[in-house]
Amino acid sequence: MNTIGHLFRLTTFGESHGIAIGGIIDGCPSQLKLDFGFIDSELQRRKTALGPNASQRREADTIEWLSGLMDGVTLGTPIAFMVRNEDCKPEDYEALKDVYRPSHADFTYERKYGIRDWRGGGRASARTTLPIVVAGAIAKQMLSEKGIQVAGAVTAMGDAEMARREGDTVGGTVECRITGVPAGLGEPMFCKYSAELAHAIFSIPAVKGFEVGDGFALAKMKGSEANDIFINKEGATATNHSGGIQGGISNGNDVIFRVAFKPIPSVGMGERHDVCALPRGVVIVEALAAMVTLDLSMRRNL
Amino acid sequence: MNTIGHLFRLTTFGESHGIAIGGIIDGCPSQLKLDFGFIDSELQRRKTALGPNASQRREADTIEWLSGLMDGVTLGTPIAFMVRNEDCKPEDYEALKDVYRPSHADFTYERKYGIRDWRGGGRASARTTLPIVVAGAIAKQMLSEKGIQVAGAVTAMGDAEMARREGDTVGGTVECRITGVPAGLGEPMFCKYSAELAHAIFSIPAVKGFEVGDGFALAKMKGSEANDIFINKEGATATNHSGGIQGGISNGNDVIFRVAFKPIPSVGMGERHDVCALPRGVVIVEALAAMVTLDLSMRRNL
Amino acid sequence: MNTIGHLFRLTTFGESHGIAIGGIIDGCPSQLKLDFGFIDSELQRRKTALGPNASQRREADTIEWLSGLMDGVTLGTPIAFMVRNEDCKPEDYEALKDVYRPSHADFTYERKYGIRDWRGGGRASARTTLPIVVAGAIAKQMLSEKGIQVAGAVTAMGDAEMARREGDTVGGTVECRITGVPAGLGEPMFCKYSAELAHAIFSIPAVKGFEVGDGFALAKMKGSEANDIFINKEGATATNHSGGIQGGISNGNDVIFRVAFKPIPSVGMGERHDVCALPRGVVIVEALAAMVTLDLSMRRNL
Amino acid sequence: MNTIGHLFRLTTFGESHGIAIGGIIDGCPSQLKLDFGFIDSELQRRKTALGPNASQRREADTIEWLSGLMDGVTLGTPIAFMVRNEDCKPEDYEALKDVYRPSHADFTYERKYGIRDWRGGGRASARTTLPIVVAGAIAKQMLSEKGIQVAGAVTAMGDAEMARREGDTVGGTVECRITGVPAGLGEPMFCKYSAELAHAIFSIPAVKGFEVGDGFALAKMKGSEANDIFINKEGATATNHSGGIQGGISNGNDVIFRVAFKPIPSVGMGERHDVCALPRGVVIVEALAAMVTLDLSMRRNL
Repeated sequence: MNTIGHLFRLTTFGESHGIAIGGIIDGCPSQLKLDFGFIDSELQRRKTALGPNASQRREADTIEWLSGLMDGVTLGTPIAFMVRNEDCKPEDYEALKDVYRPSHADFTYERKYGIRDWRGGGRASARTTLPIVVAGAIAKQMLSEKGIQVAGAVTAMGDAEMARREGDTVGGTVECRITGVPAGLGEPMFCKYSAELAHAIFSIPAVKGFEVGDGFALAKMKGSEANDIFINKEGATATNHSGGIQGGISNGNDVIFRVAFKPIPSVGMGERHDVCALPRGVVIVEALAAMVTLDLSMRRNL
Repeated sequence: MNTIGHLFRLTTFGESHGIAIGGIIDGCPSQLKLDFGFIDSELQRRKTALGPNASQRREADTIEWLSGLMDGVTLGTPIAFMVRNEDCKPEDYEALKDVYRPSHADFTYERKYGIRDWRGGGRASARTTLPIVVAGAIAKQMLSEKGIQVAGAVTAMGDAEMARREGDTVGGTVECRITGVPAGLGEPMFCKYSAELAHAIFSIPAVKGFEVGDGFALAKMKGSEANDIFINKEGATATNHSGGIQGGISNGNDVIFRVAFKPIPSVGMGERHDVCALPRGVVIVEALAAMVTLDLSMRRNL
Repeated sequence: MNTIGHLFRLTTFGESHGIAIGGIIDGCPSQLKLDFGFIDSELQRRKTALGPNASQRREADTIEWLSGLMDGVTLGTPIAFMVRNEDCKPEDYEALKDVYRPSHADFTYERKYGIRDWRGGGRASARTTLPIVVAGAIAKQMLSEKGIQVAGAVTAMGDAEMARREGDTVGGTVECRITGVPAGLGEPMFCKYSAELAHAIFSIPAVKGFEVGDGFALAKMKGSEANDIFINKEGATATNHSGGIQGGISNGNDVIFRVAFKPIPSVGMGERHDVCALPRGVVIVEALAAMVTLDLSMRRNL
Repeated sequence: MNTIGHLFRLTTFGESHGIAIGGIIDGCPSQLKLDFGFIDSELQRRKTALGPNASQRREADTIEWLSGLMDGVTLGTPIAFMVRNEDCKPEDYEALKDVYRPSHADFTYERKYGIRDWRGGGRASARTTLPIVVAGAIAKQMLSEKGIQVAGAVTAMGDAEMARREGDTVGGTVECRITGVPAGLGEPMFCKYSAELAHAIFSIPAVKGFEVGDGFALAKMKGSEANDIFINKEGATATNHSGGIQGGISNGNDVIFRVAFKPIPSVGMGERHDVCALPRGVVIVEALAAMVTLDLSMRRNL
């Protein structure tokens, strides 16, 4: 199941060291003039790495747009795009062919499929998040026209510099805030805004935790401390412990959530890899949050 | 969207103070002799409340089975069931008709639907989790035949006794462990085991956080600390920081996750309510975990 | 898979001689005052039978509304409803317990499920169309507010009177016309208006053929004969060979399709059955056409 | 909605005169050695045209495989592929830019999307069936390993030679037979084998009718004539009026259906087009029938 979304849908393809990585966006409205500069700048953010010793893979990440556009304007038909994998060195991974790296997906994929793509993590590689960033950029452009902004930031991270020197890796947390969300987004029961966000964010390799508003801290509060008191008839609240979502539906305040990334498991292995996924992770978190928010707003005809 | 699951699907209906609460289970295999005693005992667990001052609503919760069975054995056709709401006192809520209670779904539902069911929380009430417990009990029965067990427990909770005396409420956390899961469950990319669990668990009212394995604690670790080293060829690991899931796919170790519940927001309001959702919450968490695990195993033909 | 529709969805349950037949409508907009009289009159149409020797099953078909309504107005939450099976005489079918009736679903259901509900056809019975008529009536009510009408009629039928005397059964065709459909309904490729209609109509037991516009007759025409020439800028055409659909999308002219029903296979068997499915079939065809049309118009925000 | 299938899914992209046409196959099992020669031969069948005056578009139709394969063997990950559009002459269509051709999708697409891809029919072009043929070839390969064969043929066609001379076009019918289908395929109610076939077949541009078994002819029969009498305990029947499907589920006899194609509407317009869609249509009908059959068999774990 390589598809996400209901009305705004992304289907992705590609392995880390295959021919290409890409996707098909289905449900994007017609007559949208795509902001290609913005899409490229988002892809650049995904390439952010920590220092000169970070992952040495160098990819131009030039998007080929295959369909869905005429003169840069969407037709309402599926938008297909791809990026070729150019800097592939499968031979770097030959030594790992018969090894299961700890806390990687090597073992689980082989158990699932009975076959293993040992070339750089195959489909489990973080490179597979590239199409998400493309679709997220388009979703952001559309949300922006509705006055909705999505912005994330690294809020905690291990000591990457020390880790780099030690040949180790570090984890961290990303916080994301969505502003301008109207009240009423999200479907009750099984498509709650929070549930859709959680589902999307757990699609990111290395994510191990997700919380809305004060999240796990709320578990330690009393009701009298946790409640957000209304301060006007439009639903603005004095505090925002709830993170802008009540009963699974947005309440008009900022939507806020936090994401825990585990450290990259490639420790002292000789492969090309980052010290920390966090810097690249922010734009991916934002992209998925934007896609979910747009999808829910399309279901609500907003 | 009141449906959850792909091959093992539950569609639910019912408001807190409407005629009935119930659901349709679609995709349950034929020729299963339902363990009605177990289903009832699970419903009893859902009614667990804290002390004599807890929610005074008293419901027999007698299930009427409407279809899908012949002589107590499943036919392969949809299993419909319902429980009538008998102890409804909508008049208790008359006073709240024009009030938005803080941190409840009153405001968001009205903004979404333009109409409000002020009778005890309507569709946002915790009573809507009843059909989940029924479907979860059936899922557990089927998993049990495959050697898979799902068990949750409250691992942290505020001081409910003091809160009760103060007219306040408390939150807490539930941990759930799934044993006997074979390696290979979960679909890569957008239907990862962890993502499906997160999505399902966030369907529970009051849930604000979800983490797999060491979760947020992993964000503070180094890779050398977080990695789970294999100790045999079957994939058993010396530690289980990952919570049994790598790259979104089960690795054969126990699947472990934790859930944060916010305190019940009904503080000093005069309605009938619990001091804490936690005791009832455990069986609901287990039920959803069982449904997700069964659904993924059916997709894999296990 | 007992669910039909994307945004306006119906999930059904019930066997012919089980406790009850019913369904859940998910996605019905809030604030709609249901026309219960109309729903009942549609159910009466479903009971139309041919003459005194027709199916002697007598059911009051009184709907119990279980959820989704407050004072007869929709809440936006799932609408559950059921009708109890009262005039069940499973003993009438005892003799058939070990017999596969020709051209019935007895054999195929048993091969599929390994178990057989021999009581009156079980889930394959035409009685399972009852929830479709209920959902269809609600869909018609909503379409009517948009100026869209759905009307079917029997256009050909065998000699039912002779067949009745001979203990035989007859088939026939139903034509359905949808007026007031705006141009632009239907999704290209795999959710074409015509494809969604075909899919829905083939859910009716006994349907064996479906054609849009001139259908099979078009296969014998030349392009110059078959083309519908535009007569104004709004897309009205001089002829309507296409049945109002081009490239899978409505063109603003009447949508017209025809359905072939095979004769009821219960010939000389002693069960209670009709001589012909056609009179009951019209309202079922209309109901499904209304549901598909409403669903597509909701996807298009109309 | 450019996706078809549940477990074996195809998502397609591409306009007639865009950069490329292609698709993503999701759910294809791993460890299948693709028969590329067979896929190419199926694509050749799709190019079949009638005589020297047929559509002059000449495309090599060379498939680029983008993902999902290692050494020609499936990995279980999504299989993406594309074919570049090389022989595009959008300028041929400039004259049509402001004209709605009768019985084409020009008008309906513009009404739907508010924008029009006038380049050769855009997304409504028959060229969009190319990815269906690729996915169908893979489905056939997998079905063949289960002993299931899909074979279609033109059973009626207008006088193409005369039509060509007159500058006209003709329609016709295709019959398709699926042999080796085990009893039990198809889901009751809303995913019947017949309904899934009808839905898929109506995805083909120009299809206007679909019937299973004797189809519309059954509407004129009596039950005593139409019933298929069992001749052995495995469910073989003396006749096959039902086309191998009862109650929506396969009964083990050959599955047979017929499809009506309207004449190509491009009459005397100067564009490049065929005299008749039929010769190309056969392989497309087969492909969709194979995809549906494989998908249903995967749902049933066959």
